Amino acid sequence: MRLTTPTLLLDKRKCLCNIERMVQKARENGVRLRPHFKTHQSAQVGAWFRDYNIEAITVSSLKMARYFANQGWRDILVAFPANVLEMDTINELASRIRLHLLVVNVETAEILSRNLRHPVQLWVKIDTGYRRTGILANNHKELDRVMQKIKESDKLQFQGFLVHDGHTYKQTDTYAIQTIHNTSVYLLQLLRARYSGQFPGLQLSIGDTPSCSILGDLSGIDEIRPGNFVFYDLTQQRIGSCGFSDIAVCVACPVVARHPRRRELIIYGGGVHFSKDALAQEDSSLIYGRVVEFTDNGWTNPVNGIDLVSLSQEHGIVKANAEQFAKYSIGDMIGILPVHSCLTADLMKGYMTTDGEILEHLSGVPQRELVSL
Amino acid sequence: MRLTTPTLLLDKRKCLCNIERMVQKARENGVRLRPHFKTHQSAQVGAWFRDYNIEAITVSSLKMARYFANQGWRDILVAFPANVLEMDTINELASRIRLHLLVVNVETAEILSRNLRHPVQLWVKIDTGYRRTGILANNHKELDRVMQKIKESDKLQFQGFLVHDGHTYKQTDTYAIQTIHNTSVYLLQLLRARYSGQFPGLQLSIGDTPSCSILGDLSGIDEIRPGNFVFYDLTQQRIGSCGFSDIAVCVACPVVARHPRRRELIIYGGGVHFSKDALAQEDSSLIYGRVVEFTDNGWTNPVNGIDLVSLSQEHGIVKANAEQFAKYSIGDMIGILPVHSCLTADLMKGYMTTDGEILEHLSGVPQRELVSL
Repeated sequence: MRLTTPTLLLDKRKCLCNIERMVQKARENGVRLRPHFKTHQSAQVGAWFRDYNIEAITVSSLKMARYFANQGWRDILVAFPANVLEMDTINELASRIRLHLLVVNVETAEILSRNLRHPVQLWVKIDTGYRRTGILANNHKELDRVMQKIKESDKLQFQGFLVHDGHTYKQTDTYAIQTIHNTSVYLLQLLRARYSGQFPGLQLSIGDTPSCSILGDLSGIDEIRPGNFVFYDLTQQRIGSCGFSDIAVCVACPVVARHPRRRELIIYGGGVHFSKDALAQEDSSLIYGRVVEFTDNGWTNPVNGIDLVSLSQEHGIVKANAEQFAKYSIGDMIGILPVHSCLTADLMKGYMTTDGEILEHLSGVPQRELVSL
Repeated sequence: MRLTTPTLLLDKRKCLCNIERMVQKARENGVRLRPHFKTHQSAQVGAWFRDYNIEAITVSSLKMARYFANQGWRDILVAFPANVLEMDTINELASRIRLHLLVVNVETAEILSRNLRHPVQLWVKIDTGYRRTGILANNHKELDRVMQKIKESDKLQFQGFLVHDGHTYKQTDTYAIQTIHNTSVYLLQLLRARYSGQFPGLQLSIGDTPSCSILGDLSGIDEIRPGNFVFYDLTQQRIGSCGFSDIAVCVACPVVARHPRRRELIIYGGGVHFSKDALAQEDSSLIYGRVVEFTDNGWTNPVNGIDLVSLSQEHGIVKANAEQFAKYSIGDMIGILPVHSCLTADLMKGYMTTDGEILEHLSGVPQRELVSL
């Protein structure tokens, strides 16, 4: 198919390899893989996981939970602090799937307990160092209050403790990531020891793509919830989670202008396509994507001497050396690997596979089609 | 209506005041206001301009042009270097509306000239200092080639020279903005003098919201194309284009967690709602939004001592002093003024006015509904 506007290309073979590798690692470690679907948010990409016997998934909003419930998923964890304003949606979903929610405080547990009409599986989010949200692992007072509230409720079915080590995203060193992971596992195991008398069988769940991709040994926990690994991106490559050749998505953008004196190409592809997430280079300049060349059935690794260096709403500026600049004419499509595939996919609202198949993304599905079945 | 998820609120009265002020300024200066609709991208907000006798509009993509053409707009300028890969869309639109395109090089003029089946109005984009794209105002050699190509074509109807002074967005000083504007007007007038013999009646068009908002005297040109002024945002307030009370959009976000020790609120509202555009503070820290309080019919100016300081995909972190922190409970909605309203509106995919009316945004309209009428 001839492309004419910015298009998010998806290499299904790379994507399936990424899935298979994570499935294999989970199996070797004896942990359940509950993949986070917020990266792809696609009915069709989700379905690919079924071939690997994945039945339990993670999402980051109730809207996403409803979308995947409508696609037949029956065991869904919303890995975001439960939003008590959406009680109606929670009750509707809990009536038809095995819905898992997250609490980070006693107030939410209390409101859920009072308003739930169906049982939900409950996880308590623990902060082991990221400092975004969650109860600090050593805050036993708060934890005891939450656990007591859960115990008193006939609707809250305690599942276990959950961590998202988002601070691994700031690392580029395997030892740093290993240390973060070890700290989390250690703290989670202390919590298991403390509460397993009251809650036998409680589980431990961790979630970040860097730990799950880089570390070989994921023992000591029960579940992993990586998401970004399905596509990876330049950020994950920088961290060390993947190679360039594992990145499964690429934005194809029309070249609309050339500025030979400053060797800049203007592309149709801006902040509304890529998002404004940037990656700092060694000289502390920022890039918004790296350029690849198309091949018969996909694309090459990034080419040196040419980068996406600036974004406005619809325009992007690609800066190149003389050799690379000379390769592009007006009307060409240029391939660009994204800095952050989750946000790029959310903005692009759909995919075209390198085989020409069109796949949907939740953000491109009309609101009115997201009602309950 | 009770809000339960992140919702983009629109204060119609503020918006109409912003429109009216710009209409008035254009009238006083004897210039045509051709508002840029890329900020709101909404059929309904667009319709509000009709009451001010606006008939000619600006958009930034052919997709947007088609959307507004389907809403009955008949004079549309696509202020983006013409994408020759979309020749079919160009021809389809040119068959039913007065379509204006932009060229920045002779190659595009040549391809258009060869493939157009209907006349289009053509503007040549001039770079007077922004250095994103456009032909440098003193590059007479390239300009002569483009003008010659246009002259030879029976489909390209030359309209004039067009500038977008995006570098005003980096200024916070009225004199700097005045200087940028004066430079552009001076350079455009030199071009008018040079080419008006061959193209009598050629027009001059400028476009940035800071110049159009801040400067009183817009004489010497024929048309202004500001867009952001319809909503404004924190970036424009910083530049001096508006006051806080002119900002017509606000994102209402649920509070899902509270962290009293570090006085941080976790909100349901992240990069997929706000975009990652940030505003540097005096201490060089970044903020992603400022907090307002809701009133009976809108919201207050931003409150000091509480800001949106971090965004991940769905989470935001609001940091507050003790007094502000104490005001918020789990399950409250918190109001946040965006840093960049164009990107926030694009992500939010629709509006709710403070009167409870739901308005659409092109990004929330299903692709299949964007076909030609």
